[in-house]
Amino acid sequence: MSQPQRDLRLTVWNEYRHEKENPKVSAVYPQGIHQALADGLRAHGFASVQTATLDEPEHGLTDEVLANTDVLLWWGHKAHADVSDEVAARVVARVLDGMGLIVLHSGHFSKVFKTLMGTGCDLKWREGNDKERLWVVNPAHPIAQGVGEYIELEAEEMYGEHFDIPTPDELIFVSWFSGGEVFRSGCTFRRGSGKIFYFRPGHETYPTYHNPAIRQVIANAAHWARPTASAPRSFGHRPVPLESGPLEALPTRPSPEKPS
Amino acid sequence: MSQPQRDLRLTVWNEYRHEKENPKVSAVYPQGIHQALADGLRAHGFASVQTATLDEPEHGLTDEVLANTDVLLWWGHKAHADVSDEVAARVVARVLDGMGLIVLHSGHFSKVFKTLMGTGCDLKWREGNDKERLWVVNPAHPIAQGVGEYIELEAEEMYGEHFDIPTPDELIFVSWFSGGEVFRSGCTFRRGSGKIFYFRPGHETYPTYHNPAIRQVIANAAHWARPTASAPRSFGHRPVPLESGPLEALPTRPSPEKPS
Amino acid sequence: MSQPQRDLRLTVWNEYRHEKENPKVSAVYPQGIHQALADGLRAHGFASVQTATLDEPEHGLTDEVLANTDVLLWWGHKAHADVSDEVAARVVARVLDGMGLIVLHSGHFSKVFKTLMGTGCDLKWREGNDKERLWVVNPAHPIAQGVGEYIELEAEEMYGEHFDIPTPDELIFVSWFSGGEVFRSGCTFRRGSGKIFYFRPGHETYPTYHNPAIRQVIANAAHWARPTASAPRSFGHRPVPLESGPLEALPTRPSPEKPS
Amino acid sequence: MSQPQRDLRLTVWNEYRHEKENPKVSAVYPQGIHQALADGLRAHGFASVQTATLDEPEHGLTDEVLANTDVLLWWGHKAHADVSDEVAARVVARVLDGMGLIVLHSGHFSKVFKTLMGTGCDLKWREGNDKERLWVVNPAHPIAQGVGEYIELEAEEMYGEHFDIPTPDELIFVSWFSGGEVFRSGCTFRRGSGKIFYFRPGHETYPTYHNPAIRQVIANAAHWARPTASAPRSFGHRPVPLESGPLEALPTRPSPEKPS
Repeated sequence: MSQPQRDLRLTVWNEYRHEKENPKVSAVYPQGIHQALADGLRAHGFASVQTATLDEPEHGLTDEVLANTDVLLWWGHKAHADVSDEVAARVVARVLDGMGLIVLHSGHFSKVFKTLMGTGCDLKWREGNDKERLWVVNPAHPIAQGVGEYIELEAEEMYGEHFDIPTPDELIFVSWFSGGEVFRSGCTFRRGSGKIFYFRPGHETYPTYHNPAIRQVIANAAHWARPTASAPRSFGHRPVPLESGPLEALPTRPSPEKPS
Repeated sequence: MSQPQRDLRLTVWNEYRHEKENPKVSAVYPQGIHQALADGLRAHGFASVQTATLDEPEHGLTDEVLANTDVLLWWGHKAHADVSDEVAARVVARVLDGMGLIVLHSGHFSKVFKTLMGTGCDLKWREGNDKERLWVVNPAHPIAQGVGEYIELEAEEMYGEHFDIPTPDELIFVSWFSGGEVFRSGCTFRRGSGKIFYFRPGHETYPTYHNPAIRQVIANAAHWARPTASAPRSFGHRPVPLESGPLEALPTRPSPEKPS
Repeated sequence: MSQPQRDLRLTVWNEYRHEKENPKVSAVYPQGIHQALADGLRAHGFASVQTATLDEPEHGLTDEVLANTDVLLWWGHKAHADVSDEVAARVVARVLDGMGLIVLHSGHFSKVFKTLMGTGCDLKWREGNDKERLWVVNPAHPIAQGVGEYIELEAEEMYGEHFDIPTPDELIFVSWFSGGEVFRSGCTFRRGSGKIFYFRPGHETYPTYHNPAIRQVIANAAHWARPTASAPRSFGHRPVPLESGPLEALPTRPSPEKPS
Repeated sequence: MSQPQRDLRLTVWNEYRHEKENPKVSAVYPQGIHQALADGLRAHGFASVQTATLDEPEHGLTDEVLANTDVLLWWGHKAHADVSDEVAARVVARVLDGMGLIVLHSGHFSKVFKTLMGTGCDLKWREGNDKERLWVVNPAHPIAQGVGEYIELEAEEMYGEHFDIPTPDELIFVSWFSGGEVFRSGCTFRRGSGKIFYFRPGHETYPTYHNPAIRQVIANAAHWARPTASAPRSFGHRPVPLESGPLEALPTRPSPEKPS
């Protein structure tokens, strides 16, 4: 993943509120979570990485920005309600049209993710003194490349089951927490032409997005979620074949045996 | 499935507009599609089957009706937009809370189904002279019991792929159409605590819901979609274990070999 | 689940060697693991529960026994190799033909399970002082009914990921172990007409099969795995329709618009 | 897909009996099916494509050949029984260890595929005058890139449901046949570290492997099935953490509310 990946255009979206209000957070992410994520992606060879944040006009996600984004990363937490319905719908539409989406941590409660899932996306949580281990349960999946059997984070917020999502298409990581819980931490979903990866870690008070293994997973996921030159998706009326009538009942004739 | 199933409370919802406006439809379903569906369910031993239609107050789906419904069937076509957002949201919430849902034919475009899927739910279609065969691809599934290898309908509207839904949890029927298309005709999904079955056939101008095999599938599905005495789903904050600190790094000691 | 379930014929198969050789095991299961499992099933209303063990002729699994078994439970550990290929193949064939199968704990390495999975079925393990929690991740599944959000076992052998199985059709339980591992502990698979449930707990030195919640899950699973009156599965040559030739290329005619 | 893909080492295995015995087949594939497949792959930029056939020593699949194969293609039909158990087991082991596998057409009945699936893999079939259409049902999948909404084959052998396989991880193509059947024609499976793609078309008497769209799918699949630098898969005993005892019961303390 270290070779230049110039053809993939990434946009990192961040709520960017905690960092401006809480010194504990800005100590960990002085340039904001989005910059830490962008730095990690650039270090993995992605040459086109831009950022966008909630308090920019249209939250930084204009039609033009989205039209020029192949994969969008999303980090939000305490201001989900401040994301306008219009921009959320615009992002959802782009995903269905093929843009990849990586939803991080508390983004599980974002309008975008909940709309794409169709469920409540709720979970258990605790800010305590938990250690987390993300175990790989799908070792051959491209998103798990290069990270070993598990990723250990000395301290993280706990998320616990039941996680109210549809059955993921693929389950890649399951987290263990020292306080006694488990969580489906790395899940893929396809919606329309878009590929979605939900990845659990990244509470704002911990240096999770500086962790090399976490950065590796996110880089892998960006590559995995890239749009494919999809088979066309056409819908609507389909003309009647002029000549074809219903097939008649199917009379039969004897046939030779097949080798098997 | 012929024994009394008195404990399951079914509600059949129908848009009920075509039947009042189009003599061709009322000739096939003189009491409305909902009554044909209800008759089929009663014939399969369901003792508690009520109906509700779009033009009733609150579309017949009050809080009380939904609270007393175990499985809801949904048929709608040309008036999806007339279903109020409030009632649609109420139905979605009940499904997530455990009510079963059977979405029939053009219900694929209903607010309820699209919200639960998170995708556009579009497809190809044609009113022509197609014959349809619904092939069973999951023969041991309870929804496929008693219907043989395939169900043949002499004439139906065609629905064709690509059907823009999330990957179904289970695929049970795949339709063949004489005009040249295929369709994933019987699909299950779990959302929250609710079980959902989408079943394709049932255009308003054809006597599909009088067909014994189609009635068998719908009765099977009603039984399958019944709410389970679910494991509780609690969410939110989870207290910190007072005594537990992070586990220390894990030093090891030698261990005996396992037989395998 | 407490009403009589007289129609379902269960057979509990047990290797039954540890109990005869190890006083620690016979102290926990004086009549053998099979009898503890059978007792639990009878307490849940199953009236027809028989047992079979490795050292009986044909391991107690004659054609006649299998023909009269709706759901088979399987516990084996240190003598997988002593199960004859012929009996293992006979069991596999019955599963594909519709018999339900519940594979318990170290049965993951049995010939039957490995053949049905097509993979190595290996895992990590430790006999230590682990506490186990089985978290429900699919709360509306019938197998999870009545067991709460998680099942806690004060002491169990640890099994850890990666568990080398195909992606389960449904994932119901994920285990947390105090020593730092996770495991996909409750998994369903369909193979042919048969339903398979793998359930992790039950090391021979712990009283796991006396635990009420574990007994509840196994009873739920026995009910879930029952054979369905399957759609027929016919294979082989299919006659040529006498009259039908290839459809011609599909010329088209204009068509009316569809409401949507 | 037209740029050089020099890093991927492909081996095309063919039974190569029909071509030597049946003039009708040799007219279509004068150099054998394997050479037609290899030509198609080379035209898509794969620089390292070798072939192997049944009647070579060890069927051309020595340990060394397999060790130097990233993705293996498999075409067999009437001589499945002539493949030695030893070579079949060797291929299965390599797949579980990460080699990709593309199983073509009648390879559904090969020892390799049946072992990896754990089911009978039977189906219906007919050599008649069927037209086939392979509809894309997963348009964003990389295997479906560049082939349009469906692939049409003027004449092919029919394969019909029920196809006795485990539920595929992903379903990409569904075939329509003019004689009245459907088939799950493009399916992915993961087994161990290996990725498997089953692709239906390719009866020996039709020029299917000269078809550009079919060649595109096979080239896409070769790329998709490439081994990943997998997360390590270690199994077996795991040491006891020296210090850790069971967590105590979890007493709790009050906690602040979470924004959501």
